[in-house]
Amino acid sequence: MQTFNQTVNRNEDLYLDWLLEACRQPSVSATNHGMAEMKEHVKRLLGKVGATITEIHTGGYPIIYGELDYNKEKTLTFYNHYDVQPADPLSEWESDPFEPALRDGKLFARGVADNKGNLVARICAVHAYQQAHGELPVNIKFIFEGEEEVGSPHLEYFAENHRDKLETDALIWEGGLRDAVNKRLHVGLGVKGIFYAELVCKGANTDLHSSEAAIIENPAWRLTWALSTLKDPSERILIEGFYDDVRELSKEDQEFIRTIDYDEAGTLQLYQLNQFNQGLTGEELKTALIASPTCTICGLESGYTGEGAKTVLPAVATVKLDFRLVPDQKPERIHELLRAHLDRHGFSDIEIRPANHLTPFNTKSDHPFVDTVLKSVAETYEEKPIIYRNLAGSSPMYNLLKGTDIPAVQVGVANTQSRFHAPNENIFVVDYFQGIKLTGSVIKNFSIKNTEDLKEGVYCEEVEN
Amino acid sequence: MQTFNQTVNRNEDLYLDWLLEACRQPSVSATNHGMAEMKEHVKRLLGKVGATITEIHTGGYPIIYGELDYNKEKTLTFYNHYDVQPADPLSEWESDPFEPALRDGKLFARGVADNKGNLVARICAVHAYQQAHGELPVNIKFIFEGEEEVGSPHLEYFAENHRDKLETDALIWEGGLRDAVNKRLHVGLGVKGIFYAELVCKGANTDLHSSEAAIIENPAWRLTWALSTLKDPSERILIEGFYDDVRELSKEDQEFIRTIDYDEAGTLQLYQLNQFNQGLTGEELKTALIASPTCTICGLESGYTGEGAKTVLPAVATVKLDFRLVPDQKPERIHELLRAHLDRHGFSDIEIRPANHLTPFNTKSDHPFVDTVLKSVAETYEEKPIIYRNLAGSSPMYNLLKGTDIPAVQVGVANTQSRFHAPNENIFVVDYFQGIKLTGSVIKNFSIKNTEDLKEGVYCEEVEN
Repeated sequence: MQTFNQTVNRNEDLYLDWLLEACRQPSVSATNHGMAEMKEHVKRLLGKVGATITEIHTGGYPIIYGELDYNKEKTLTFYNHYDVQPADPLSEWESDPFEPALRDGKLFARGVADNKGNLVARICAVHAYQQAHGELPVNIKFIFEGEEEVGSPHLEYFAENHRDKLETDALIWEGGLRDAVNKRLHVGLGVKGIFYAELVCKGANTDLHSSEAAIIENPAWRLTWALSTLKDPSERILIEGFYDDVRELSKEDQEFIRTIDYDEAGTLQLYQLNQFNQGLTGEELKTALIASPTCTICGLESGYTGEGAKTVLPAVATVKLDFRLVPDQKPERIHELLRAHLDRHGFSDIEIRPANHLTPFNTKSDHPFVDTVLKSVAETYEEKPIIYRNLAGSSPMYNLLKGTDIPAVQVGVANTQSRFHAPNENIFVVDYFQGIKLTGSVIKNFSIKNTEDLKEGVYCEEVEN
Repeated sequence: MQTFNQTVNRNEDLYLDWLLEACRQPSVSATNHGMAEMKEHVKRLLGKVGATITEIHTGGYPIIYGELDYNKEKTLTFYNHYDVQPADPLSEWESDPFEPALRDGKLFARGVADNKGNLVARICAVHAYQQAHGELPVNIKFIFEGEEEVGSPHLEYFAENHRDKLETDALIWEGGLRDAVNKRLHVGLGVKGIFYAELVCKGANTDLHSSEAAIIENPAWRLTWALSTLKDPSERILIEGFYDDVRELSKEDQEFIRTIDYDEAGTLQLYQLNQFNQGLTGEELKTALIASPTCTICGLESGYTGEGAKTVLPAVATVKLDFRLVPDQKPERIHELLRAHLDRHGFSDIEIRPANHLTPFNTKSDHPFVDTVLKSVAETYEEKPIIYRNLAGSSPMYNLLKGTDIPAVQVGVANTQSRFHAPNENIFVVDYFQGIKLTGSVIKNFSIKNTEDLKEGVYCEEVEN
């Protein structure tokens, strides 16, 4: 990788310029601010590496698809997005969100961490590889969507209708970060899924005086009783069949969970808590974070919630429930099971209004591509990586990759203090260049046939907490 | 009563004028609007019957105390209040709330139903009795407070520090009404009590991303579980000892419940319900309304309650609980039992923030004064009365009468469509004059020693629903 890395070093000014230009162009999908201009900008960037570009219309902001066919045996795909979150509240930014600013080794701009830093870094890596070696040892595909920040509503449509463009041997997913303090890179192999729904329980057609409670049913009580049938104080979810599809942790999954160095004391202090839920600690705590599906009350509302006392019998009670799902649970199935559970427990009148759903997705921990990435990480970073079999959060990986056996790994240039979606979003400039080098390393290592010899010493050492 | 009633008829214009004048004078205790002027007005009214007047200072708006000592064996007291609710929203009034208006046989004004109509009617009755018979057959006391609409914060202080002024053989409580449609008078012998508290359950010191729910406790779940230990779906309150002090219904209590003609079909239609709680109907329904203590969720709040989905793990969850209490439950005891219950069930961290409390109070159904009033009702109204052993609602009767054996009965000049506390508050003018006559009848009948002969035929007939 010496020639490649030297090329990256030599091109630092150029590659930083490419990132600055990309960040200068607003591209807020939620408000359609600069989206058309950003689309053209992305096409110009892909032009710098000579990619064949197709603009794929899905009904929303188009997907920019790029291809570099070297007639190689393997193909590597980069999935990224060119849209960003709105910049509000503007008053909290220390510099203009769309005028990138360098301070203390960091680059501040809306979208620099999520996801322009990665999008441009992938292109830079291909560019440096071309300069260093003339061509790449693998074919390359770019899938750059413009709707990730509004829930990727057309990603599934793309996957179903453009299967040829999704033909690939492996995929690097859009995001990724590094611990801002100990500098360990997070490598993500997947995400939890989600089923989010509002449950609505109705009583009389209007709020009544609470003296009527002696004879008229209270929907707030009914909802309380219904909820208490869903989960018990030991945190066990009581919906029949809920855990049926949960995949058992493999040996590798368990090894990867051990790489996580969760700062228990720091977290408890930060949130002013005495202990974690159920007194969890150590391996159990980390396993719960990664491998436990959840059922969370995100919001509860009924009756009078203002100051002081109002003697009211509510007409309606609602709860917002968020189920985080792990492989191989399916949100549609959880919806069915929840409906059946409520019906079985005498709550067939409680309406379920589904909101979001995302299916969990992960690449199996023992997949050879995981070794390829880990080998590349070891070549690029001094610090041992933290490997997430799946993140505790969710993203639409399944929407793109369902029905395929494409491995997808998440690495990137942001860090744990990057202020995603918030004012003063930033990355370390050095992480951007490291990210380019990591991508180059992945390209190289992915072209090597047998990866068995890469496995040792990459992640299996015990990590101190 | 012929002479008395003729006197009332002759003085109709005068007595209506007295009411109009009282209604013209604003007296909003919440905003101190016209309170000083109303106090003087009340004293002038009491002057019309020659009462000895004392202004009793309690720390708030004074109690106007009046006395007419005829050196008789028995004393009858009228408790009323001279303050009214604020008139907001003014735009919804069809006429000025403080410029009484006659329309369709009704008098519209803020306070006319609650409670100036009654206050003036009591004075008018004494006045007419004086004109008809020279003197009254019983001594009379007036206790007119100015803080009822702000929760009677000094009534207990008055009772404890002016016991001589509270020495009486019976009391007519401030309010009361008549069914607007079938014209049956409601006779109230008491009120339920109340213990209202907010329960607060806290988790982390800030709302968190819901992916943290795998390891960090959710106060909304804890509150749900705590609530589900308080009451089960059969509506049985599970707090240990909660029912211990509930007084059994006497034979008379049960007879009085039978006088209630609850419009089940009409209520269900009005509120668009299929059935009452637990399928209650008939005697059981009426008994529940009168004699069941309740535990009501008046308000629930936690986390995100806006539109759509927000994946948040709430920092805090609160519920507003309203316990309606029946004789002889005590709110202080219920507070203790609730605390002990939560502690025993592992919820000692849930804070109880008490708001309102009122002790239930009622006059026993077999008290002779009840017969006196019912005999007087039978003399004054054609329609059989509805007798409430206690109302489903609450008021501070106990604060005035605790530690005494003074019987108190609630009758008055308002009706079920009087729009209490609301715009266009009103009474039927005819009910005002009937109320004066009823009061005169009570004065007369109360002076008769043996009331045993009055009992038959007053209330014991079966009422059709």
